[in-house]
Amino acid sequence: MSVLLNFAMFPTDKGGSVSKYVSKVIGFLNNSGVNYRLNPMGTSIETETMEEALKVVNDAYNILEPYADRIYTTINIDARKGPLGRMDAKIDSVESKIGKVIR
Amino acid sequence: MSVLLNFAMFPTDKGGSVSKYVSKVIGFLNNSGVNYRLNPMGTSIETETMEEALKVVNDAYNILEPYADRIYTTINIDARKGPLGRMDAKIDSVESKIGKVIR
Amino acid sequence: MSVLLNFAMFPTDKGGSVSKYVSKVIGFLNNSGVNYRLNPMGTSIETETMEEALKVVNDAYNILEPYADRIYTTINIDARKGPLGRMDAKIDSVESKIGKVIR
Amino acid sequence: MSVLLNFAMFPTDKGGSVSKYVSKVIGFLNNSGVNYRLNPMGTSIETETMEEALKVVNDAYNILEPYADRIYTTINIDARKGPLGRMDAKIDSVESKIGKVIR
Repeated sequence: MSVLLNFAMFPTDKGGSVSKYVSKVIGFLNNSGVNYRLNPMGTSIETETMEEALKVVNDAYNILEPYADRIYTTINIDARKGPLGRMDAKIDSVESKIGKVIR
Repeated sequence: MSVLLNFAMFPTDKGGSVSKYVSKVIGFLNNSGVNYRLNPMGTSIETETMEEALKVVNDAYNILEPYADRIYTTINIDARKGPLGRMDAKIDSVESKIGKVIR
Repeated sequence: MSVLLNFAMFPTDKGGSVSKYVSKVIGFLNNSGVNYRLNPMGTSIETETMEEALKVVNDAYNILEPYADRIYTTINIDARKGPLGRMDAKIDSVESKIGKVIR
Repeated sequence: MSVLLNFAMFPTDKGGSVSKYVSKVIGFLNNSGVNYRLNPMGTSIETETMEEALKVVNDAYNILEPYADRIYTTINIDARKGPLGRMDAKIDSVESKIGKVIR
């Protein structure tokens, strides 16, 4: 099983600049051993089960929770039976069809 | 704490008609005791913690998983420190400002 | 064609209470003639084309834009060839399979 | 004004393998001159206005529409007053706080 999950999580009661808080979440991912990729609007992770993927979101929430009274989270998940390794494979598959793309 | 979570979950390998599968998830919610409301594009639930809210998503996934090889899920979460009861209160608050709205 | 679009739009630089701003958007929808339903986490609309549906989002943004320096929007769209009327039909279809649900 | 929009768009009536369709959309972006970055779960673009950003989504839809009877789209938008150039700046800002991250 391959579970690809992309999420963004940020406080909505801390004004317009939230990179301080986003950095705490990415710092946690960096140290967690989770396979992740940062993109301009969120972070993608890949895990072997839905439960693991949602646990990463819950852990990220537990890191932010002490700092804010209101936290917004948006998540998209593509769960597919088959081998891991889709983090790059999905983009490689597009490139095999149309040539080099910007990652 | 009040965690409002809206989600939609559906197989993407079963053709265009997925209400049979969506019904399985709603049937589970109906029997689970979770506070939920169905809307045209998803289901909103309210729980006391992020962990409970994500567990409902995981439980829903476990119901669909035997029926499909690929399942897509989209989730939005508004977690706010304060009392439960926001499922209706958010809409009531809008109505108090602009008058009756269509739910 | 039936385009069902669910969206939430809110300023992220105005502190934790945003119902004043959300009400402006719903007030606009109420007066616009667009077929809409408010839910705890967003608003669903149904239109005949993708272009019309996205125009509603753009119009809503133009209403909020003068009041905030940063606005977050999350959107899900289910576009299906066939007749309009899915706003209630999707929920009715679930009820025909499992009995009464909470809307 | 900087409008960052991340979206994923795919047919839901074509079975589990949709990279053929996703490639059509990315091919269009590649040729359009739009500033974009592909990630494992979607594509981020940056434009100067909300209207331009939503037009890209509508153009992408018009490319897929002939091939499918049902198309699902999920979109997140962060619109902020200020200069363009946030596609990389958001990630750079995280790196300035916690060191190198995986993009």
